[in-house]
Parts: sequence; C-alpha cells; structure tokens
Amino acid sequence: MTKVIKGGTVVTADLTYKADVKIDGGVIVEIGPDLTGDEVLDATGCYVMPGGIDPHTHLEMPFMGTYSADDFASGTRAALAGGTTMVVDFCLPAPGESLLDALKVWDNKSARAACDYSFHMAITWWGEQVFDEMKIITQEKGINSFKHFLAYKGALMVNDDELYASFKRCAELGATPLVHAENGDVVAELTAQLLAEGNTGPEAHAYSRPPQVEGEATNRAIMIADMAGAPLYVVHTSCEESHEAIRRAKMQGKRVWGEPLIQHLVLDESEYFHEDWDHAARRVMSPPFRNKHHQDSLWAGLASGTLSCVATDHCAFTTEQKRNGIGDFSKIPNGTGGLEDRLPVLWTTGVETGRITMNEFVAVTSTNIAKILNCYPKKGAVLVGADADIIVLDPNKTKVISADTQASAIDYNVFEGIEVSGLPRYVLSRGYVAVTDGELTTKEGHGEFVARDPNATVNTALSKWKELTAPQPVLRSGIPATGV
Amino acid sequence: MTKVIKGGTVVTADLTYKADVKIDGGVIVEIGPDLTGDEVLDATGCYVMPGGIDPHTHLEMPFMGTYSADDFASGTRAALAGGTTMVVDFCLPAPGESLLDALKVWDNKSARAACDYSFHMAITWWGEQVFDEMKIITQEKGINSFKHFLAYKGALMVNDDELYASFKRCAELGATPLVHAENGDVVAELTAQLLAEGNTGPEAHAYSRPPQVEGEATNRAIMIADMAGAPLYVVHTSCEESHEAIRRAKMQGKRVWGEPLIQHLVLDESEYFHEDWDHAARRVMSPPFRNKHHQDSLWAGLASGTLSCVATDHCAFTTEQKRNGIGDFSKIPNGTGGLEDRLPVLWTTGVETGRITMNEFVAVTSTNIAKILNCYPKKGAVLVGADADIIVLDPNKTKVISADTQASAIDYNVFEGIEVSGLPRYVLSRGYVAVTDGELTTKEGHGEFVARDPNATVNTALSKWKELTAPQPVLRSGIPATGV
Amino acid sequence: MTKVIKGGTVVTADLTYKADVKIDGGVIVEIGPDLTGDEVLDATGCYVMPGGIDPHTHLEMPFMGTYSADDFASGTRAALAGGTTMVVDFCLPAPGESLLDALKVWDNKSARAACDYSFHMAITWWGEQVFDEMKIITQEKGINSFKHFLAYKGALMVNDDELYASFKRCAELGATPLVHAENGDVVAELTAQLLAEGNTGPEAHAYSRPPQVEGEATNRAIMIADMAGAPLYVVHTSCEESHEAIRRAKMQGKRVWGEPLIQHLVLDESEYFHEDWDHAARRVMSPPFRNKHHQDSLWAGLASGTLSCVATDHCAFTTEQKRNGIGDFSKIPNGTGGLEDRLPVLWTTGVETGRITMNEFVAVTSTNIAKILNCYPKKGAVLVGADADIIVLDPNKTKVISADTQASAIDYNVFEGIEVSGLPRYVLSRGYVAVTDGELTTKEGHGEFVARDPNATVNTALSKWKELTAPQPVLRSGIPATGV
Amino acid sequence: MTKVIKGGTVVTADLTYKADVKIDGGVIVEIGPDLTGDEVLDATGCYVMPGGIDPHTHLEMPFMGTYSADDFASGTRAALAGGTTMVVDFCLPAPGESLLDALKVWDNKSARAACDYSFHMAITWWGEQVFDEMKIITQEKGINSFKHFLAYKGALMVNDDELYASFKRCAELGATPLVHAENGDVVAELTAQLLAEGNTGPEAHAYSRPPQVEGEATNRAIMIADMAGAPLYVVHTSCEESHEAIRRAKMQGKRVWGEPLIQHLVLDESEYFHEDWDHAARRVMSPPFRNKHHQDSLWAGLASGTLSCVATDHCAFTTEQKRNGIGDFSKIPNGTGGLEDRLPVLWTTGVETGRITMNEFVAVTSTNIAKILNCYPKKGAVLVGADADIIVLDPNKTKVISADTQASAIDYNVFEGIEVSGLPRYVLSRGYVAVTDGELTTKEGHGEFVARDPNATVNTALSKWKELTAPQPVLRSGIPATGV
Repeated sequence: MTKVIKGGTVVTADLTYKADVKIDGGVIVEIGPDLTGDEVLDATGCYVMPGGIDPHTHLEMPFMGTYSADDFASGTRAALAGGTTMVVDFCLPAPGESLLDALKVWDNKSARAACDYSFHMAITWWGEQVFDEMKIITQEKGINSFKHFLAYKGALMVNDDELYASFKRCAELGATPLVHAENGDVVAELTAQLLAEGNTGPEAHAYSRPPQVEGEATNRAIMIADMAGAPLYVVHTSCEESHEAIRRAKMQGKRVWGEPLIQHLVLDESEYFHEDWDHAARRVMSPPFRNKHHQDSLWAGLASGTLSCVATDHCAFTTEQKRNGIGDFSKIPNGTGGLEDRLPVLWTTGVETGRITMNEFVAVTSTNIAKILNCYPKKGAVLVGADADIIVLDPNKTKVISADTQASAIDYNVFEGIEVSGLPRYVLSRGYVAVTDGELTTKEGHGEFVARDPNATVNTALSKWKELTAPQPVLRSGIPATGV
Repeated sequence: MTKVIKGGTVVTADLTYKADVKIDGGVIVEIGPDLTGDEVLDATGCYVMPGGIDPHTHLEMPFMGTYSADDFASGTRAALAGGTTMVVDFCLPAPGESLLDALKVWDNKSARAACDYSFHMAITWWGEQVFDEMKIITQEKGINSFKHFLAYKGALMVNDDELYASFKRCAELGATPLVHAENGDVVAELTAQLLAEGNTGPEAHAYSRPPQVEGEATNRAIMIADMAGAPLYVVHTSCEESHEAIRRAKMQGKRVWGEPLIQHLVLDESEYFHEDWDHAARRVMSPPFRNKHHQDSLWAGLASGTLSCVATDHCAFTTEQKRNGIGDFSKIPNGTGGLEDRLPVLWTTGVETGRITMNEFVAVTSTNIAKILNCYPKKGAVLVGADADIIVLDPNKTKVISADTQASAIDYNVFEGIEVSGLPRYVLSRGYVAVTDGELTTKEGHGEFVARDPNATVNTALSKWKELTAPQPVLRSGIPATGV
Repeated sequence: MTKVIKGGTVVTADLTYKADVKIDGGVIVEIGPDLTGDEVLDATGCYVMPGGIDPHTHLEMPFMGTYSADDFASGTRAALAGGTTMVVDFCLPAPGESLLDALKVWDNKSARAACDYSFHMAITWWGEQVFDEMKIITQEKGINSFKHFLAYKGALMVNDDELYASFKRCAELGATPLVHAENGDVVAELTAQLLAEGNTGPEAHAYSRPPQVEGEATNRAIMIADMAGAPLYVVHTSCEESHEAIRRAKMQGKRVWGEPLIQHLVLDESEYFHEDWDHAARRVMSPPFRNKHHQDSLWAGLASGTLSCVATDHCAFTTEQKRNGIGDFSKIPNGTGGLEDRLPVLWTTGVETGRITMNEFVAVTSTNIAKILNCYPKKGAVLVGADADIIVLDPNKTKVISADTQASAIDYNVFEGIEVSGLPRYVLSRGYVAVTDGELTTKEGHGEFVARDPNATVNTALSKWKELTAPQPVLRSGIPATGV
Repeated sequence: MTKVIKGGTVVTADLTYKADVKIDGGVIVEIGPDLTGDEVLDATGCYVMPGGIDPHTHLEMPFMGTYSADDFASGTRAALAGGTTMVVDFCLPAPGESLLDALKVWDNKSARAACDYSFHMAITWWGEQVFDEMKIITQEKGINSFKHFLAYKGALMVNDDELYASFKRCAELGATPLVHAENGDVVAELTAQLLAEGNTGPEAHAYSRPPQVEGEATNRAIMIADMAGAPLYVVHTSCEESHEAIRRAKMQGKRVWGEPLIQHLVLDESEYFHEDWDHAARRVMSPPFRNKHHQDSLWAGLASGTLSCVATDHCAFTTEQKRNGIGDFSKIPNGTGGLEDRLPVLWTTGVETGRITMNEFVAVTSTNIAKILNCYPKKGAVLVGADADIIVLDPNKTKVISADTQASAIDYNVFEGIEVSGLPRYVLSRGYVAVTDGELTTKEGHGEFVARDPNATVNTALSKWKELTAPQPVLRSGIPATGV
C-alpha cells in the first residue's frame, strides 16, 4: 500500500519547491512531479514539511512525588495533533541508580507512544558505574546525548567537578552533553529567603529564578564543556543573559547550541502576576517566562542562527497537581504543556509576521535538532529514504487554542485564546496517517525508538581541533635537582 | 551521453552519504547506489561536492588606468582548476554611466568564460536613471544584487544619502545590497597624511586602512540597510571590528551576511613588512591582511554561522602593474589572486584541522551564497535537477602551491609554498569535465550567465516584518490651529 | 565682607565631611571647623556642594527662523534657581562665517548672564579660515572645545572629511571635539518619507531619529576621533546604542566621554504618543526620548563611569513656537527646558533611590565636566582657591515641579507634576547669594566668561601615546626601479 | 618637629598643582605656597603624591607547608623602598578555625611592619560561628572586606551556597566581599589531567588555569553578589574574559571593581616557556601571566575606569621553595614579588607612554582602593588631616631593576633588567622619612593597623536600591483551598 501526498509544496530547511511525495513502508520512496500511489493525500495549497521534532519533553515524569499528567500515550497523541512526529524524552535515573536500569523504566513507559521517540540520558550522579555505563548507553543503546541539571539542588543537580567529568566522558565517547542551566545553589537560597519573607505565591517562582541565575549557569557550563573538549546543548534558553553567553561562546569558535521554548518566545512574566492563583500557578515552569526584551533576543537568535531549536519542555501537570503549592510556591510542580501548540504558535508568531522564514521554521522545529542529535536525514528531512514523518501544513486553516479541544490530558492550556493559523491537514508518522484535518487516528504503541549513533560531524571536528591544540610540554635540557 | 560519478561520498551543506551521481544534459538526473552511464568517473575515496561558487571576483576589471590581469578566460580557467565552477563578478558603471550600458560591456567580457557566472551590479552614482534602471536590471536582467562602495573616494564611493536611496530601492525590488565597507573619507585623509610623512611603501597601505575604518563602515551600512528595510551582504569582512558589527546586527534580528576572504583567513599583515618591496606590494589589497586575532574571529564566524561565505575578491595584477606604486603606495593596484587556491587552502586549514566540518566547507564555499543570491538549488547543490557543477575532491591528493604551475595569468601567488590537500580529482561544469587530476580541459566560452530572480525568501520575510512594524501616526481629535 | 557657610556637610566628587566654608572676594578661602565671617549662611542639615555646571545649553539660540525663548538673562536665572552656577553654551557660526565674528555675537548675548558661563565653538563648515581661527579661539579666546553636528543636514551638519580635518586640528591644538551624533543623511531621508506617508505629528519626530541612527553616528565619530588622535565628548547620549559604542571605545582604551540628559534619564517616548498635540510637541528634542531599556542603560553608565556628565541641552521654545510644526513635525523647533530642574530631578531619581551616590551626583553634575573642559578646580570643586560657586542642598526640602512657579521664560515644563526633593537652601555664584530658600536674588550681568586652556591632562597623555604608536616606514635596501 | 616638603608639584587623583606640604605629628597640617617647618624635604622637580597602597599582599603566608619568604618586616621594607606606604594583607583562618583566632595570628605577624597595614578577612569555611564572627570582625575589628577563594579546592575554596551566604552577610553588615576568581573544580581536574599526560613543567601551571576558567568564576561571583545585594571586588583580574564579565556587570549598573596586577600588565606567558626551569617556576602565580591581547584589555580598563586598582599579590617564594615543584608543577608555591616595583614599573609603562595620566596613576595605585576600602581620605590623599603617607616621586630618576639591589628577601625579581623611571626621592610613612634617594631608613614596627568602618558610600547606596527593588508579593483576593 503506497501513499502519495499530491499537489503540495515541499518545504524543507533549505528548499521550497512543488512536488509530490510518495511513501512506501513508512519511508519516502520518491519525490517529484505527477506521482501515483494507492492512496492519495491531497496537499493542494499546503506545505509538505518534515514532521516536528520536540527535543525536550517529560512524559509521565516523576516529580515532587507525583507524575506529569501527560504520559507517552496522551503526550504523543498531543504531539501528533500539532504536527510533531517525534519527541525526545529524558531518562532520569535516581541518584545512585544504574543508567541501564533507569532506561528499562523509560523503555516501558514509552511502549505506548503513538509517534517515534528517543531519549536523552540524564547524569544525576557520578561514579565509576556511571562512567562505565555511559559507554554502553552510547555504543549499545542508541543514545548519544546526556543531560545535566545545574539546578534542582538536592535532587537532580550535579556539581562542577561531576560536570567536568561527565562532559569529558561525553567528549571521549563522541556524545553531546545537554544542560539545564540555572544555578541551583542560588535558586535554593533565594527560594528559602523569599518564603521567609512571605513571598509564597506563584510570582515568587519567577523571583527565585531571575535571568542572571540562568545566564551564569549557561556561561559556566560552556566553559566546562570547552575545557573538557565537548560541544554543548543548552536546553530552554529563556533569556538574553543565557543567549549572550551562547553568542559569546560562538564568537570564540565554541560549539554551543541554544534551545528556546515556544512558551518563552510568546508568553511573558506578567502571567505570574495574574490575580487568579490557578492561572499563575499553571504557568510555573523553570526557567520562568521573561519579558519582551528577552523575547526579542530569542527571536533574533532564531533568525540569526545563534539559537537552533524551538522546544516545549512539555511537562504537564493538572490544576489539582499545581495546587500542591498553595502557600508555598516551591511546591508547585514545575512544567507546562505545549507539545500540541508549538508548531501553529510558532508559525503564527514567526512565519506569518516575517520574523523567520518557512525554511527557518522547518529548521528550528525539526531539521536542526535531527542534525545535532545525529538522526538526520532519517528524521527532519523530506528526502528519499527518510522516514515518512510528515506534516501537510495548511497555511489558511485557523483555530483558537482552547483546553476544551486539546489532546493533552490536562485541564488548561497556557496558550488559551490565541488564534493560530498553519494547522496540519495531515500528519504522518512513518507513513501512517495520524491526523486528518483535526481528526485524530493515532495508534498507541505505533511509535518506535530512534537509535542515534555517537560521533556526529561536529563532535568529530571539535575533537580533531582540540587534539591539535592540546597543551604540549616544554622540552628543557637541564632541570635543577629537586630540593637543591 | 550520460556520465556517472561512481563510488564516492556525496558531501553537501547538510548531508554526507555514499552514492553515485548521474548526469545528463548538464544536470544531475539521478543520485543513488549502483548507477550506470555512458561515461564513468571514478570517485573512490573521494568526496562529491557542489562546485565552488566565488561570489566576489574582478576579472578584466578597469582600475587605476589598467586592467586586472586575469580576464574571464584565464580567470575562470583558474577557478575550475581549483574546483570553483561559478564566479560572480561585478559590473562597474562609471559615474554617470547607464547601468544597462555597463552591463553590455561585462556581457562582452564574460563571453569567454569557461565556467558559469553571474554579476552583481555596482551603484557608483545616484539619479533617476539609476533608480529606473535598477528595476530593469532586477526584473529583466537576472541580477538581484547591487554593490556599493563606501571606499574609493572620488571614484566608486557613494555617500550615505545615496546609500539609503539605493538600499531602499533594493528593498522595494526584492534585491539585496552589498557593500565594500571602509570609510573612504578617512582612508583618503590617512593616505594623504602617510604620504606626507614619508610613509610611501606597501606597508603604508595597511596603515591607511586599519580595522576600525572597516568596522565603522560596516556598522554604518548595517544601520542604513535596516532603516531602508533591506538585508545586507558585507563583502570581504576582514576583521573583528567588522565582524562585531555584523554579530551585533544579527543579535538584533537584522538580516546581515559577512564574507571573509580566504586570504584574510590565512595570511597576515607581516607580509607587508617583508624586506622585498615586490613581495609586499603583491599582497596589497583592500582591506589589507590583518593579524591572528582577526583571523581567529573570522574562523569562529565560519563555524558559528555569523559569517556566511568564503570568497577571494580575485583581482589579479602582475608585478609589473604593482610596481606602478613604487614611491607611492596609493598607486599600487589593489588586488590579489586566489580563485584557484580558495578551496584547497580552506580545506587544508579548515577541514583538516577540525575548525570547520566538511559540510560547513560546502556551505561556505558554495551553498550559502547560492541561497543568498537566490540561485539555489540550481547552483550550490548535489540534487536531482541541479546543474552538474561538481567537484570530486580527493582528500589525499596534495601539492605545494606555486606560481609556476598555476592557471592564473599572473607571475606570483600569495599562497606560494603552502602545502595543501583536498585537491580535485574531477571538476565538472554543467556536466562537462573541465579538470581531471590536475589536467585542464576547460573550454573558453562554455560558461553561461546565471540569471537570479529577486524576492528571495529572506528578503520577502524581512519586508513583511518591516511592514508590520512600520511607524503609525497617532490619531488626535483636536490639534491646535497653526500659529495659534 | 566675608561669608561663612556653617554647620553643613561638604559633599564633593570624592569626599563627604562636616566643615564650614569661608568665602571672600568670590572664592573659597577656608574650609574647616568653627569658621567665622561677616555673614553666616546656615547649612545645618544640608549638603554643601559645588554648584552645578550644565555643559550643554542653547540660550537665545537662532533656530528655524526664531530664537530659543530663554536668553542668557532668563536662562541663567533658571539655572541658579535650580542650583546650577555655570552654563556652557554653544557659539554657532553660520556656514561661511568667521568663528571670531560669531564669538562676538555670543559675547554680546552673554553679557546679561547672572551666573558664570563658557562657550563651545561649533565647527559648521570647513576651510583655511576655520583652520586658522581654531588656533586663535583655543590660544587666545579661552575655548578648548569644538562642537560638530553630524545631524541637521543642510544647516549645521559637517561631513566625515571635515570631521576628520577638524578633529585632527583639535588634536594638534590640545582641544577636545564634541559631537551631536545622529546620522543627518538618514534623518533627512526618514523625515521626508514619514511626511510623505502622512506621519506628520510630533510622534514622527521620534520615528525619524531612532536609536540606531544615533548609535551609528556615535560609532563613526569615535572612529574618526581615534584616527585623528583626539579624545571625544559625545553630547546628549540618549540610548543604549550610543552608549554601547562609547563603552566599546573605552574597552579599547580610547578617550571618549558620554553625556546623558536629565530628560532622557527620566522621561520616555510615550510622551510623544500623548493625545494632546501640544503636550507631545513640547517634548520634541533631538535625540528624542527613548524607553525604559535605554534609561536603565544610561543610569548604569552614570554609576559605572562609562557616562560622565548629566546635562540638559536646555533650548526652550514656547508652545507658540512649537506650533510652528503643526501639520509637519519637522518644523517643530527642537528643544526643551531643564536647566532649573536638572539637579533636583537627578537627586530625587538618582540619589534618593540609591542608583548613584551623593558623590557621584556631584561628579556628574559638576566636577567631571570641569575636569574634561579643563576649568577644574576653579569650577566644580569645594576647595580653597576655588570659585565660590556653591549649592547648599537641603535633602528634606521638597516641591512639585510646575511651570507656574519656574524661572524659565516658557509656558510649560516637561517635568510638570514630578515631586522632587533635594532643593537648594542657598545658591552662591562666586560668593554672591543668588538664591535663598526659593527666593531669587540673581543679578543680571553678574556672570563672567570662564576661559579654559587647551592641553588638559588627558589630551596630553593621548597625544603622547599616539605619537609613540604612530606608523613607521619599513626600511628596504633594494626597491625595484619604477615601471620595471 | 614639623616637616615641609618644598618646591614640588602635588599630584592627586584629581589635581595637579604646585604647593608645599607641611607635616606635623604624622599628619598633613597645611598645603600651600611658601610653607616653613623644622625640617625641609626638597621636592624640586618632583611630584608629591599619596603613598602607594597595595591592596593585595601575602606576607609570611602559610602555603603548601612553607611560608612566603617576605614577612611583614622585609615585605613592608620592600613596599616603602618602592613608594608603597600601606599594604592590605589577608588573614587566612584554616577551615574550621575562628576568625578571631586567626586575626590574632596576623596581628602578631604584622607587629613588625614598617608601614601601615590593614587586613582582609578570608572566609574559608561557613557556619554559624563564621556568621557571628563576621559581625565582630566588621564592627569591632576594623575590617570591612572579606575574601573568598573560588580556587584552591580542598584548601581555601568555598562553594556557591557558602559564597551566597557570606555575600549576603556582607551586604547586611555593610562590608565588601572580595573574590579570587578561578573555578577551583576545573583547575583541579585540568591539573590532574595535565600531570597524567606528562605536562609536569611550570608551563603546565599556565595550561591549568586558562583565561576562561578565570572569566567563568568572575562571572559567577558577580551574579551571586548581585543576588545577595552586595558589591564585589575581584582581585587579580588578569584577562579579557574576567574584565569582560566585570564590564558586563557594570553595564547593568552593578557595583563591581577589578584589580589587575602590575605583573599581568607587563609580563606575559612566554616567561613560562623559558628554557630555564627556575626562570619559569619563579613566575608561577595564580592567575598566570597572559598575552598582549589580555594586557591591552587591562590597560584599557585602567584608562577607562572599568578596572580600579593596580596591586601585586606579593607572595614571594625563594628559588629553593619554588623547586619543591620540580617534576610536578602543582607543587610549585604560587606567587611572585612586586611590592617594591609596582609604582616605578607602572609609572614607566603607563605614565611615560601616555597610556594613563599622572592623576590616574595616583588613583589606581592609591586613592581608588582607599575609597573602596573606606579609609579615604585618611589614606590615599594629600589633604590637610590626611596621614602623611607620601611619596616624592622624581620623574628623572632611573634605575635598572635587579634582585641584587632589592629590599625583598628573595633571590630573584620577575622584572629583572627592566629600566624604570619615576623613582622616589622620599617616601614618608605617617611623616616618618623611610626612604631618601634609595637609602632605606625604615623602622620595623613603625606600621600601624588601619581600622576601616563598614557602610562605605557605595555599599549604602546599593542597599537602598536593592531594598527599593525587592520582590513584592501579589495580593490575591481568592486563593483556592489547598488540594482542591
């Protein structure tokens, strides 16, 4: 059974052209004019793009004694509804736990996924076992990216020496380290102080994590990665301070990528000052929303390439879960939704306004991360041989975002009320039509794990340069005898 | 008669994969495994890449009463010898001259070209005629890029109001302005002063054009382009000051590209202090070579994407021509060669060291400029349907650069003595094999003009954003009567 | 007849201490405890500071066919009322006019001044006469600062080569160039375009002079000053872009000073969007007010020392004069008042908030400019031997700013309604008590011209460094014969 | 017995004028023309300046099982020989040790000082005792500055939460935190790695502490200080990376000071590549010497005010002590001399070249630090009432620096062979003539402790601003009941 997407305009990260796309067995087998197949999907007036890849989700994540409300079933369903055909989730070993054991847990959870997925492995502690297992994870388990938390002191946070050790190990293995960059020590101190001063509401969450605290951690992680000889991927870059650190690094030839979230691009800190506690608490995530100054910085980064990917950090908690933090903001579970809305919101606020081009839209929602994570062109491409993860985007289709009509399991939506265009007419997951004009026909368990090899091009080039410029001893003929 | 490039690894700006490439009628007709054709070009152990595009040449250029020594015949022969399959030259109307008339002159010169070519049109004066002809040039002549000189006072230089007017016209037409960014007033003043003080040697050329003078002009052109609503392409970005201005612009979301030359990446100002006058004078170009600090900045720009293309500004003068400036450095014709050496020198100092990846190499030597100039993927791509402008690069083939063995018409080479690797096994110009293992079989007149449409993606997006954010009048109910 | 200021706390740019100050013959003759004199001014609970110096006023300035409404009589009265005891005005020769002739005109106007004053000489055209007269002005007329306009095309504006020539002349003479930094070409183009598009209201004045246009000109002037070997003083630095250029210059060791206005520190662009045309037009000045982002930048500059002086650019036009621009914003006379309000507004928004210290307040309102203009410690100091230009500032005295109660001749006040503290109990001009608790006893004609010598310390140091690092010719043994 | 310094030119941080200076009882009692006294010191042709203050010395410091070779006797003798009349040393409690106990040890050592001195108290661990004793130290012991080491892991280093706690305590007490800014974790990792790779020589010391490592720590300390509401003083700022972090902080209005060392301004990393092991090892200090790029940055900082003080970090070890690190660079005691050479070397390379003015020389060697440490104008001033700590500097007196003729106890001098001018004709310590034309008549034990109060002007202003901008809770009428 072949399928043909007919009459559309193919839009990739670097090309825009009219062509039909033929699919067989889950992969693209032909691209060109006048193709035929068993089933025809009409793409007239539409753009045929690589499906979105969200590099940053936390489905069914254990956090503060509960689990994020969207699991791999509802989460990937929401993803597909919005045109995202692959998610990269985080495998989070508890401190002391084997990476391999944790991976089994995540393998289990993800069995219900409706779209393809992969994992970043988190390094939440350090020891010989971790050192050894990183090799197995990289070489046998198809995971080439390791996440590090500089925040969440006492839980996920690692210290600078652990960071250095793990980054160095990544460099040896050809893997790429990721960081959540906020100074966990300072966040903890500010949190305690704010609570002591009676700042207990959701707005104090924002007070406890100002941009400087993120900028500092970003800057620190960049230095440590450079010393260890590894590239670095900074997740949820939310502010100018962090973006500045990334730009400064790039200006010195360092290999660093930044990932703004769709939330930070569009929503601002005024949400936390909302009169309704629930409204404010539902927006609590780390880093918190910033202001227009920071938003402008992020948009400029997308247009100029100093920022690379737009993600969601989808980690959805219900209002009931959020209310755990009444009277103590630090107990509000951190996270918002977004998986379903990322693409249309970015299309509307980015492409429709001319801030970014259609090709840049594809690059930042799909292709760039596929390259960085070394699964391109299997993913992130409309090319013969690539997986048929495709969105047929109708630029004239519009809707008003509403929790009432969303696929996500939670009872609200942080983008509620925003009118968006650029909605999917079809979404295909490895050739399977999961969405038709808003109608979901996703299949639980359809999703497969995407294995990713180490030693991506950039990693290899960086290693070569680091070796070439490594410190060399001075050769001295006569060294005085020790102790004279 | 079809050709197949067999057994190689295709390397493009974003992909590296094993495949054969089949060519028919000058274009690529198939890419895949096990292709067959009438003629087979063995690419075993080689990289199959888009041929180089040099966006910045001056062949047979009139300058200071003479002509640059390489014309379209010898120049494009040199280009092909080094793997460059397209050059973009500058059509230079004299002040007061019709753009269309000038174009005819350049059309004539270029008839002898052995590889494909296109033109940037220079705006060297301003008036209604220029305003009107820009439209014809853009809409009928296949030229979407206009060059402006902020230097060469009294000759090519235009003032800020002319710059604004021309940039604004570019914005309206969907064309892209280019600038040679050096402050011509200051260069003229410094030159006069240096000569008066007895600084008459070639080193004084460098003194007369310090980095600040370039940085200033870059910064100014960026501001004017932004005000006029146009993107901007800065040619021969040679220093940190200019690169900084570009980065700062990008950080604000502006659409600006920078183009370092291979000379500035590799050679430094110490050349001008050479004891041999000829040696120093042969390196005289504008901007002059800088130092390691600036080189590091340029390399970082290539790796991070804040600089986009590597060019040559190939404008070759013989030693005899250079000696016109004995006793007065300002009379030394400005320009060096490089067309033949750009690719191998960049490969050796960039890819071999790990400073850039192979894919970035393709991007900065070919693909990026094809996109910016809106002739992608006809040029700059290894894709079905693209022109078969291809280099089969052998990473193991080496040579020592020498004027004795070069194709260029001049009697020296600024890269003399540098050992390079990454030489072409084959170079194809629209399917025609012009180079085989160092053997040149170029055909004079084989080259065709590449017409380029306006309204490239980025230009269109920028216009949309500018329109959206244009100044709006405040509506006031009661305005006081004039003069009370 | 001696006077003693008793019981106060002396606050200078670098000291805070309890002491009495004794005055005789217009100068300070003793500072210490328990002084006695013929007349006692009670300073209990007050700060005894150097009187303010406003380095930037335009009194009775010819502009657009009218004159600014405050002349040297009313303007200096307003100055004294607010604690400013010296103004530096601009002598503006018409293009073609002799500098010496123009100086006579300004000498005449200033004869009515109630406080001391000095002049900057404007260079509004270039020629041998200007070159020659600059020497006379510097060496015989007590003026060591020359103003240059990069804006006001067709009127005051000079081009880059004139700028270079004049800056170089300044360097030779040990004088300091000043610039009004806005790109006049671009302002003219934007103005024409805005009017053509129907943007005729006062808000379009702001549209026509965006921050980039100021930043560019600042950057350009800095480069030219550096090339010419002169320091540079940038008047009315209003925005981050300009401040950034200044910081970048300082980071390279250049000698550049920036001068924010009290208006730009406190008022923002929303004023131009006011529903009332008069309200908006009264705020029209160049550069226009900016936003909070820019204000924060300016405040940080004052605290960190990257900006040096707070001025007013006092150039007051009546509402009637402003209405000249109804229907065409470009005809609204540029300028606002501020002389009377600078000190209390800065005290209130700066010192009272802790953004700057009291000592920094003195530095930026008085001492720094006295040093830069080389009239320290005659002015800007509370030292034995210094002129007794003194403000006795009462931190507890407050008022609400109102046009109804101001000394200035105009019919409105841009700070109307702001409550300020830190008002003068006494203001002394060379020992004469001109203000007592809000009561004005100023004397028309009391003011004297302050002659200022060239070759201030910084100018001399810079010249030495420039000489030491000047370009040197390479000595070559054999230079080829010309033309071979 | 009064003394009069006659016939000189008084040079302070902001004034240059001819005057005699009269001294009685160790303080300046009169400044003016034609003074008389019991003893006359002829200052004809000389500059009369505030004696140097070195804010950064380690005399008789315990380190790596030995003591720095200059104790308070020889060290202060060397200081006076070079025109420095006050040193600020570091009291270093061992981890766990009482601050008060440690202070007693330092009080004992300093009893032999020949010039005045003060202490910074180091915070090398954290606990309630430290918290409590900081108050006593500040309020009763005359110490308002607390040093923190981000380097020396396992010894002096403190972590980020300790840093925050201590900085916060400083803010409460009106004290100023200092930091040694290098990332100790990374230095430790790099050191281990270098040794493992066979990089054991002194040059590896430089490899182990690259500029990025210093820049990172500076940036981190600045963020933490800002969050804690304290200003910050960064000791031995050696590189552009650290300076950039300081500039960036200042650009945001933060109160941060940077202190380059005279060594870093003048000497470079090539010293570590010296063929002679002893030569290289004698230059081992932290941070290590950098290159010309960094030196230019530091000089620009002094001229522009983004760096505030020039110090020495004088911590002298003999060649014999240095040889402890043969075969293992990490065992070379860190530190060099400089106390005796700081002033003449800075005069020669700074004032004589025009890079800084004479007044800036006084500011950065004496006055600025006196203000920052809140002992101005007792120290750092030539004012009536100030301590008579004075250097009479003869600009025409020259010498070649040599270990053979130095006062310091060690057997070499890192400035060996440099010809300097600007040597003291006289040096007075509280009126006592300790140096006469190179002749030392210093008195062991003459030095007194300089007590310094908290709540300097800048500290107080900053606290006010922080209070004004502190987070405020949102007042909400209806908050949902917990747990729904």
